[in-house]
Amino acid sequence: MERSVFYISDGTAITAEVLGHAVLSQFPVNTVSYTLPFVESEERANAVRERINTLYQQTGVRPLVFYSIISQTVRDIINSSDGFCQDIVQALVAPLQGELNIPPAPEANRTHGLTAKNLGKYDARIAAIDYTLAHDDGISLRNLDQAQVILLGVSRCGKTPTSLYLAMQFGIRAANYPFIADDMDNLRLPEALKPFQHKLFGLTINAERLAAIREERRGNSRYASLRQCRMELSEVEALFRRHQIPYLNTTNYSVEEISAKIIDILGMSRRMY
Amino acid sequence: MERSVFYISDGTAITAEVLGHAVLSQFPVNTVSYTLPFVESEERANAVRERINTLYQQTGVRPLVFYSIISQTVRDIINSSDGFCQDIVQALVAPLQGELNIPPAPEANRTHGLTAKNLGKYDARIAAIDYTLAHDDGISLRNLDQAQVILLGVSRCGKTPTSLYLAMQFGIRAANYPFIADDMDNLRLPEALKPFQHKLFGLTINAERLAAIREERRGNSRYASLRQCRMELSEVEALFRRHQIPYLNTTNYSVEEISAKIIDILGMSRRMY
Repeated sequence: MERSVFYISDGTAITAEVLGHAVLSQFPVNTVSYTLPFVESEERANAVRERINTLYQQTGVRPLVFYSIISQTVRDIINSSDGFCQDIVQALVAPLQGELNIPPAPEANRTHGLTAKNLGKYDARIAAIDYTLAHDDGISLRNLDQAQVILLGVSRCGKTPTSLYLAMQFGIRAANYPFIADDMDNLRLPEALKPFQHKLFGLTINAERLAAIREERRGNSRYASLRQCRMELSEVEALFRRHQIPYLNTTNYSVEEISAKIIDILGMSRRMY
Repeated sequence: MERSVFYISDGTAITAEVLGHAVLSQFPVNTVSYTLPFVESEERANAVRERINTLYQQTGVRPLVFYSIISQTVRDIINSSDGFCQDIVQALVAPLQGELNIPPAPEANRTHGLTAKNLGKYDARIAAIDYTLAHDDGISLRNLDQAQVILLGVSRCGKTPTSLYLAMQFGIRAANYPFIADDMDNLRLPEALKPFQHKLFGLTINAERLAAIREERRGNSRYASLRQCRMELSEVEALFRRHQIPYLNTTNYSVEEISAKIIDILGMSRRMY
């Protein structure tokens, strides 16, 4: 059975999506999802209610609705729809109110918003993205003293997406440096990286997966051959061990997981945005 | 009064952070937060409980604990700590079970995980990041037919971070094209962009904020002068209007909000990762 799911918010609806998705992943059910952000006015809320009700009438299956909305009026409109409505934040606000012994004072539902209060932190995050882009793929080995982490690995093992995720999600300045085929005969840690031993982190990957990824990029090439992938990986992993550089096999992990593990292993602090 | 907050998960803890942060933002309270991902073993759970209890003893203020953990044994250990413990997912699972009329079957708590089931979707996401990087800042005007959105705007108005966020969070292939100072005398939409009118989206920003951002990058330059910023913005906004390109003033919005608004305005579909 397929269920329709609505994620509704007066903000970006990213929180509603992430949590609703986490809750639904606990059940063996197929879903079709609709995300409706910026539902701030009664007019838009009425249109959303109409949409939920129409879908229910058409399918005969009650849509699931996860929402996060500050305005009581807007909330009431959503709640009066025929969907199965769950306020994702409120369920936790009530018990917390008891513990904190202060009433909630929701000014605006801007979990992902930009305010005078967090502008400096936001600018630091954008600066981290700039830094990371300027130090992607070994483009620049200057200013590595400003990096918080330097990722190392062969081509297409996940360095770039991981660096960008670290910058975007956590405001971490992440440089990355690729070991290329030409380096392999006499693989050494570049002199420019040696002063930063404590920030180095290696990424590796299974040879079969690497070959498949490279095949997509440059089919039928030596670069994509299983033999070449195996050789590069074994040389680079030997280097990681020789220099006692912590490393992680990324094959079965998403960028979220790889990033969280790097932060955990290196004991870095996480910032939230 | 300052409260300590722990975000604990057997996965990346990103969901716990996002939701806990949303809940706490409803209260006028200052917090110091600790995120503890990959708490999968009894050993690690016991260490976490110890840390919570020690902090309570030292400060005399009960720490708040938001957690999301599948294993009942590990969960019981966290719950037996002296913190004020809230299971962020379970609060919504129970009512949903009644509605779905099926028991939850949590296989593994991998909201942000990589599985055989979602590997293709994950590869598409990485491909979107690759595409976006290759089409950042007008680097390449080839293959624009493959873009899902093309962002336009002056230097430092937010094109690059927004493009990367669209790719990273939503798997959207986002190109971007800068209008530079030299273009301004006779500003025109490049021929290469004209076939893709329906994918064009403009970003603009307040001149004062732009000047401040540019000043950081190239202090005391014509590029950063308020006069130059005002001129570029007014030329580019006129172009947006002339060509009926939808546009957004990014000054008071985060990349999350800008991205969600672009998707909303262009009627694009959101994918979840």
